[in-house]
Amino acid sequence: MTTLSPANSADHRYVLTLGCPDTTGIVAKISSFLADIGGWIVEAAYHSDPDTGWFFTRQAVRADSVSVTVEQLRERFAAEVVAGLGSDTEWRVSDSAVPKKTVLLVSKEGHCLGDLLGRSYRGELPAEINAVIGNHRDLEDFSTRMGVPFHHIPFGTDKAGAFEELRELVDSHNPDAVVLARFMQIVPEDLCEHWAGKAINIHHSFLPSFIGARPYHQAFKRGVKLIGATCHYVTGELDAGPIIEQDVIRVDHSDTVADMVRQGRDIEKLVLARGLRWHLEDRVLVHGQKTVVFS
Amino acid sequence: MTTLSPANSADHRYVLTLGCPDTTGIVAKISSFLADIGGWIVEAAYHSDPDTGWFFTRQAVRADSVSVTVEQLRERFAAEVVAGLGSDTEWRVSDSAVPKKTVLLVSKEGHCLGDLLGRSYRGELPAEINAVIGNHRDLEDFSTRMGVPFHHIPFGTDKAGAFEELRELVDSHNPDAVVLARFMQIVPEDLCEHWAGKAINIHHSFLPSFIGARPYHQAFKRGVKLIGATCHYVTGELDAGPIIEQDVIRVDHSDTVADMVRQGRDIEKLVLARGLRWHLEDRVLVHGQKTVVFS
Amino acid sequence: MTTLSPANSADHRYVLTLGCPDTTGIVAKISSFLADIGGWIVEAAYHSDPDTGWFFTRQAVRADSVSVTVEQLRERFAAEVVAGLGSDTEWRVSDSAVPKKTVLLVSKEGHCLGDLLGRSYRGELPAEINAVIGNHRDLEDFSTRMGVPFHHIPFGTDKAGAFEELRELVDSHNPDAVVLARFMQIVPEDLCEHWAGKAINIHHSFLPSFIGARPYHQAFKRGVKLIGATCHYVTGELDAGPIIEQDVIRVDHSDTVADMVRQGRDIEKLVLARGLRWHLEDRVLVHGQKTVVFS
Amino acid sequence: MTTLSPANSADHRYVLTLGCPDTTGIVAKISSFLADIGGWIVEAAYHSDPDTGWFFTRQAVRADSVSVTVEQLRERFAAEVVAGLGSDTEWRVSDSAVPKKTVLLVSKEGHCLGDLLGRSYRGELPAEINAVIGNHRDLEDFSTRMGVPFHHIPFGTDKAGAFEELRELVDSHNPDAVVLARFMQIVPEDLCEHWAGKAINIHHSFLPSFIGARPYHQAFKRGVKLIGATCHYVTGELDAGPIIEQDVIRVDHSDTVADMVRQGRDIEKLVLARGLRWHLEDRVLVHGQKTVVFS
Repeated sequence: MTTLSPANSADHRYVLTLGCPDTTGIVAKISSFLADIGGWIVEAAYHSDPDTGWFFTRQAVRADSVSVTVEQLRERFAAEVVAGLGSDTEWRVSDSAVPKKTVLLVSKEGHCLGDLLGRSYRGELPAEINAVIGNHRDLEDFSTRMGVPFHHIPFGTDKAGAFEELRELVDSHNPDAVVLARFMQIVPEDLCEHWAGKAINIHHSFLPSFIGARPYHQAFKRGVKLIGATCHYVTGELDAGPIIEQDVIRVDHSDTVADMVRQGRDIEKLVLARGLRWHLEDRVLVHGQKTVVFS
Repeated sequence: MTTLSPANSADHRYVLTLGCPDTTGIVAKISSFLADIGGWIVEAAYHSDPDTGWFFTRQAVRADSVSVTVEQLRERFAAEVVAGLGSDTEWRVSDSAVPKKTVLLVSKEGHCLGDLLGRSYRGELPAEINAVIGNHRDLEDFSTRMGVPFHHIPFGTDKAGAFEELRELVDSHNPDAVVLARFMQIVPEDLCEHWAGKAINIHHSFLPSFIGARPYHQAFKRGVKLIGATCHYVTGELDAGPIIEQDVIRVDHSDTVADMVRQGRDIEKLVLARGLRWHLEDRVLVHGQKTVVFS
Repeated sequence: MTTLSPANSADHRYVLTLGCPDTTGIVAKISSFLADIGGWIVEAAYHSDPDTGWFFTRQAVRADSVSVTVEQLRERFAAEVVAGLGSDTEWRVSDSAVPKKTVLLVSKEGHCLGDLLGRSYRGELPAEINAVIGNHRDLEDFSTRMGVPFHHIPFGTDKAGAFEELRELVDSHNPDAVVLARFMQIVPEDLCEHWAGKAINIHHSFLPSFIGARPYHQAFKRGVKLIGATCHYVTGELDAGPIIEQDVIRVDHSDTVADMVRQGRDIEKLVLARGLRWHLEDRVLVHGQKTVVFS
Repeated sequence: MTTLSPANSADHRYVLTLGCPDTTGIVAKISSFLADIGGWIVEAAYHSDPDTGWFFTRQAVRADSVSVTVEQLRERFAAEVVAGLGSDTEWRVSDSAVPKKTVLLVSKEGHCLGDLLGRSYRGELPAEINAVIGNHRDLEDFSTRMGVPFHHIPFGTDKAGAFEELRELVDSHNPDAVVLARFMQIVPEDLCEHWAGKAINIHHSFLPSFIGARPYHQAFKRGVKLIGATCHYVTGELDAGPIIEQDVIRVDHSDTVADMVRQGRDIEKLVLARGLRWHLEDRVLVHGQKTVVFS
């Protein structure tokens, strides 16, 4: 299992993300701080939300441009910038050289799993995929061929017990992302809360249309001219979590449900891969029911 | 007001559309009939719907290739083809040299009106626009500048009376299409039935998401990453009629509701213009709650 | 002719754009300056180009948040920020309350003209359209109906003389944008230089494919599956200036050249309208043969 | 290695494709023939090209609806339909139950290979992938993991010898498709002719833009706002063969060449997978330098 690692020091970055109540002077504060430590900013994005009065930013600096360690950067950022902002400020400093850990939850459909393991195998995902967990054994052979441990947890009559086992197994990897890659079980509310901001689902419709089961059948019945897929954070309310990414493809009257299922797979794979990548690169900031995505 | 007319006889066409219960041999019947009368087929499209067991076709033949008038074509087609098909067969033969008539219903938002009148002025629409009817006077000046009669029907306290006046005025033009070009009134069920298959609406969302009022506000609140527009036939159930065309554009966290309204206009205009064109060219066959569009 | 004006003071903005050799601390300098004058930043975008070593930014501040006039802002920004940057720094401060002036050059095809005059009529373009100049009279009637003065300059045998007349007429309006809205004449090199950074063309292909005449015929002959349009700054080299915006639509084997021409119009209109809007809102920064577009 | 096989007799089809000089009555002839043998047509597509005067059709009938074998169908179709058409008529009858054979040619980049082997593994491709042949060993491990034989043919100093070896190895599989899945060698003209209509390439640009080497570098330098991929038949002229499919994705000033390479991979995979599928399902008819794609 290969993972992306900085080919050289120029690719090694520290990434700061921050969300706080908006006020004048925040950008000046942050940029002055970064200038002080000699930070060479390679990406900087800002967003002021007039609707919520909230300010968001993401800054990526070359690690070799600053004279401090990532721990020192965190401490100084907390003391010199965050301390002067609102008490409900949310922030984070991450180090691109520390690989993110990911666990995939699957059922029988293998296209999203195949896509993610392929990307990971080729070093295209900024993550290690530590485990695949399935409620069926259908995808064990593929996972094993790709060198990723597969765990089978049957979801039969004792669903609560199965979810307890799932929680322990997932948590044992301390993952940065828990990906529901066409995992066909509805996650209980307390587990949603436990994995809040980490659990990512791919739903095979353009949400909020066609929530729940068999969305392609619903789309076929309604006669829509585009079908889509949605990557979103998992919350207690089914298919209603903050949306990270969506996309659509064109269908027409000649497409059967089977055609939609087949064509939809490609858009599901792409939307999930993009959403997961942005999550792993700290490009997604959640606020309430919505996301800011600095792609 | 210019309308598209065949530049020469090569562009003059007879268009046959037909929907009936599927069975083997229908294509042979139709194509043999057309071959018999010497018909030079310039467009032919077929669709068999395995779900409903229904068959649909649209055929366009060069008018100058057949030895019969359009009336004779209708009679012979009825006798030689349709008579041998199921009794609930729906069909139609139209003549591209007879311009279609269109009436536009508007309110205050002028972008769809402006787009359609512009296309009509430049001879890009296969239709005459006979009248613009508004429940406000905001778009009177523009319509008049473009040479199309504007009628004002206020929808104040006596809505029923206003709809009665609207019905009479529209029907006086005997239109092939009644276009709700951002007409902000909900058409009563009996009028929907009266104009069934003729009344076309543009809704500013990707249906079935965000039905009803202020869809861009709903989209903003939900945090979707694409916004869309839907052109559909008007039926008694709000925003639930058969969909003719849909399209979307990408938005992100930096787009306010006002940005969505602005960018959405462009997609509304395009989707309506495409849907209306297909309707006018007999490319849309309705069956139940869905359409077959031979675009 | 209506133009967009700030509905209220909250929409009145000062916009700073700047491009200079990249170095650490620029963002800090600019944001500290803006914080000093109390500037409420409503939009901020940055780009560091590793390829050219150039830095670009665009900042929009609420005019009512700063205690200075736009002239004072320019002076102080020059003295307090620009003076400390490289001598080849390019910058500009503009005031959203001062309407931009635009002149349109046309020939016989009216779809781009119709689209822009319609947007302007409805107050959707951040510009005044001061004049339409055509080498044919075909679009005079439409321009006049829309209340915009039309000027006819015949481009017969004395092309040099016609371009001289065109230059004088255009320059008399001192425009911020000179839009070649399907103007079918090749502008001489000296005039391209004279209007550098202001003259915007719409080319009906996905450049760099199908440069020059009859691009839809070229596209048809090559059998491409998508056709496009490109909005770019005009330079001395034909269809080779910095690209502002491009888009495409799908075609297939059933589309004739006439179909491509018809469908292409819609994408030409959209691409030109987007490109022009971004230019007028100071969202486009040119560097060498490329653009940075802070859309 | 799984391959798609008809799940039941309803999915077993005979597919007829035909191209010939256009004349009236062809559709009648074909459909009467199919009606005579009791053929239940599940898909029927026609195209008359006014430019070349050529007629194209593809018909899919349920195998269980006809009383003849596929060989008898071929004989009777030849005698009863084709014999009455022009002598340069090109036609073919294929049986969906006979799996198509495919050979993949690769170099070092594994994303297209990974995508195709993944689809094949999951039974999503209507083909057997019989062999992967690489001019480097980089993709041997992956192919082997997926259970597909990998052959290494070094293309060092003796290119002619290597191509001779390649030809023999490929031909030993008698493939229906030879896919250049980011194979970085230019195939000699005689081999292009030998594999005419079977060899399919994926080029990582929106052709005809950026022919030849390093198209993403060319796209970056030109500053285009969309990048694309093109799937086409291989002919003697580099990157100039008949185009099967193309698609694009949006990029902007912030995308480096490396970003384009990364994002471009996704569009390359999709475009190749779609093009190959259509080829394998006999949906692509080539005429001169162009294709008719009955997708």
